[in-house]
Amino acid sequence: MATTYDLVILGGGPGGFDAAVEAAGAGLKTALVEAAELGGTCLNRGCIPTKLWLGATEPVEALAAQTKARVASGSVGIDFAALQTRKDKYLAATRKAMQQRLTGLGVDLVAGLGRVVGAGSLEVATADGPRTLGYRNLIVATGSRPGSFPGLAPDGAKVLDSTGLLALTEMPKSLLVVGGGFIGLEMAQAAQRMGAKITLVDALNRLAGAEDPEVSKTLESVFKRQGWDLRLGVKVASVTTRGAEAVLTLDSPGGGEELRADCALIAVGRRPNSAGLGLEALGATLSGAGYIQTDAQLQSAPGVYAVGDVNGRMLLAHAASHQAHYVVTRLLGHDSGPYDSGPVPSILYGAPEVFRAGIMAQAQDDNAKAPSSPVLVSRAQLIANPIAQAHAATAGFVKCVWREGKVAGITAVGAGVSRLACFATLIIKLGWTREDAEAFMFPHPTLDESLKAALLADKEAA
Amino acid sequence: MATTYDLVILGGGPGGFDAAVEAAGAGLKTALVEAAELGGTCLNRGCIPTKLWLGATEPVEALAAQTKARVASGSVGIDFAALQTRKDKYLAATRKAMQQRLTGLGVDLVAGLGRVVGAGSLEVATADGPRTLGYRNLIVATGSRPGSFPGLAPDGAKVLDSTGLLALTEMPKSLLVVGGGFIGLEMAQAAQRMGAKITLVDALNRLAGAEDPEVSKTLESVFKRQGWDLRLGVKVASVTTRGAEAVLTLDSPGGGEELRADCALIAVGRRPNSAGLGLEALGATLSGAGYIQTDAQLQSAPGVYAVGDVNGRMLLAHAASHQAHYVVTRLLGHDSGPYDSGPVPSILYGAPEVFRAGIMAQAQDDNAKAPSSPVLVSRAQLIANPIAQAHAATAGFVKCVWREGKVAGITAVGAGVSRLACFATLIIKLGWTREDAEAFMFPHPTLDESLKAALLADKEAA
Repeated sequence: MATTYDLVILGGGPGGFDAAVEAAGAGLKTALVEAAELGGTCLNRGCIPTKLWLGATEPVEALAAQTKARVASGSVGIDFAALQTRKDKYLAATRKAMQQRLTGLGVDLVAGLGRVVGAGSLEVATADGPRTLGYRNLIVATGSRPGSFPGLAPDGAKVLDSTGLLALTEMPKSLLVVGGGFIGLEMAQAAQRMGAKITLVDALNRLAGAEDPEVSKTLESVFKRQGWDLRLGVKVASVTTRGAEAVLTLDSPGGGEELRADCALIAVGRRPNSAGLGLEALGATLSGAGYIQTDAQLQSAPGVYAVGDVNGRMLLAHAASHQAHYVVTRLLGHDSGPYDSGPVPSILYGAPEVFRAGIMAQAQDDNAKAPSSPVLVSRAQLIANPIAQAHAATAGFVKCVWREGKVAGITAVGAGVSRLACFATLIIKLGWTREDAEAFMFPHPTLDESLKAALLADKEAA
Repeated sequence: MATTYDLVILGGGPGGFDAAVEAAGAGLKTALVEAAELGGTCLNRGCIPTKLWLGATEPVEALAAQTKARVASGSVGIDFAALQTRKDKYLAATRKAMQQRLTGLGVDLVAGLGRVVGAGSLEVATADGPRTLGYRNLIVATGSRPGSFPGLAPDGAKVLDSTGLLALTEMPKSLLVVGGGFIGLEMAQAAQRMGAKITLVDALNRLAGAEDPEVSKTLESVFKRQGWDLRLGVKVASVTTRGAEAVLTLDSPGGGEELRADCALIAVGRRPNSAGLGLEALGATLSGAGYIQTDAQLQSAPGVYAVGDVNGRMLLAHAASHQAHYVVTRLLGHDSGPYDSGPVPSILYGAPEVFRAGIMAQAQDDNAKAPSSPVLVSRAQLIANPIAQAHAATAGFVKCVWREGKVAGITAVGAGVSRLACFATLIIKLGWTREDAEAFMFPHPTLDESLKAALLADKEAA
């Protein structure tokens, strides 16, 4: 007879893992079903390995900045094979620590793909054959995977998705990046620091299309100065492997130009892992690219919750963790009303970095809500900040969006601006006024004072 | 006849400058008296030039960390003459911008040393002879200067204070640092990155004696691994120039060991610039090393306020600015009760960095208030943080001090922990509980999550 769990979780990424730790820690009988590796995309094929690449290559960027300021000279080389080994070791150690944490808390780890076979019943295709788990509550946290379009499918040879790029054993000398969103931009920067010549193509006419257009301008200006070949506002007909090269054909009437490189990265968004879970039979709805719809309590069907990428609310690891905490808190009997994400911070790493939370001056896309009442903006340029000067990285700005006298959104671009993230998110949540900013003791000298300067600057129409 | 100002400010450092900008901006007839350069110690001889040194040399440190992790190799050289030129240009440009800001706001800049000659009357020794200014209110913001002890006086040859070191035209190959506080530690790190072999001597038996003893341990361990010769808990009899060397003689019975280097830096604290201001005649009291005593409204005598280093409350630029804002706000007629600094953030730059705000687990000295009720502590190690791993700089920790279920102090040491400063200061001010930390969406992956981990870790007795 199948064991019945208080909680079964599908997926061991940030949302699923955090849910399991919190639920089991609070005494719920919990099982976690994972078909691949603990840690999900974030740990194994996303945020973490990308940050290890960016961190390891930071001396290259730091030296370049100070060399341009003519105070330093020298050279830095990256041992890519050693970096990949270090990355793989770190990821394996982290997965092991996660597993120990879960088993230490009494979570049953079940390896295999899970599928709902009836209300309260899940079948997992394990290596030893199907296994049935009973559940009182189910959290679906199955995440997402790299997306592709017709003509833009990774082929496992020279046309890769982010997973493929992160698994390379040799860094290509040239890289074609299709997609100017955060994934493409972070990977392109890391690759360039390791010697790859970058060509980046996007159908949009600007980089980081979900961000404030002024952010895009700063990014474009910095990356152009670094020698990137930016092809914005152009359409791609196809990307294929031809011999030892990736060949991208632009889509234009009468035959498009061809771009060639050692390798191509397809970074054109992500798709939810929601197919074949059997949720529709319980009453759940999939929409758009297959995102599991959730109500105000993050519920998709009675006793079935969806958190993280798969519900399409916000494809960020910390959003998944935050939603998981909300759901487990509810399961433990604390009713805290409808789910409220608060302002959601997002970060692009690299140089420059981008940070955003809260509303933007103009709605850019579905990721940012349009202002519901007139807004004002105030801004400060990083060039006026002594820490930006010290790092010889002065391109960028901090921009505050105000609604009814309270700060409702903050966007920043520039080297190191990710350090503003928690503080900025919190002051938006608190609805700070100008007077609050005046009364707060900002430490000096800090890059954070660029946020102070923006908060205290004259406001103007957006 | 002398002009009578609504406000005269003595000293154009961070406190005096900010007071002048705010007062003149609000319409007060304002004069600023400065004997030397606008910007004070912080801009000209303190925080800012030190950060320019540390920023410029950061590629050296970043490369060293990744080289130790065996993923990078190479070399970085710093052109010290070019760095000094860049520093001097930046400081001059900043002074000019400050001056333009003041004159643009209608502040009268008076160059010279000021001295009170009676209630409401100040005499400034200008280059054109004495000039008398009348004032309704006076803010004394004359700052501080490097201190010395008998036998430890800078001689302008090979024995220097921080001002002297920052003015060098050639970086010494070896540097004796007397004093393991923040000034000595920041300058020693910058000097080492530019090739100087460091010997550091302190009478205390640990570095950064005002900080948590665990912070000192981390610093000592990192700097020892970097090859510093640390001589802690020893007394210095004398430091003198002998030929082309600085010679330090340790104080021990029967004749002390001699330490030699190309240059010595005396960094043994600071002394207030309060002599000869004529404040005592108005009823002001100087105490200790000459700090101007202030009441709960930062007043030293009727209509006379003291802000910044010279009042001895907290020798930090941002404390001066914060106090200046309070005083000007009062002068403008807003009575906001007694001055309340809130938690005061302090930062040591370099690698590692140190951050502290609020109370410590044990009172270390007058800079930190002793807990008034029993406290608990919780902590997290940076080694568990992926961003620390990415930067191959994992030594350090974040420690939270709790009182009555609320976070009342945060201390951190490690590469990059200064990024916690504003957020940590604010959550102490808000008195966050564990539940507040659980409900907040920390962005992932960030070094900030080490603070989250510390906030959520089990609490134990201090």
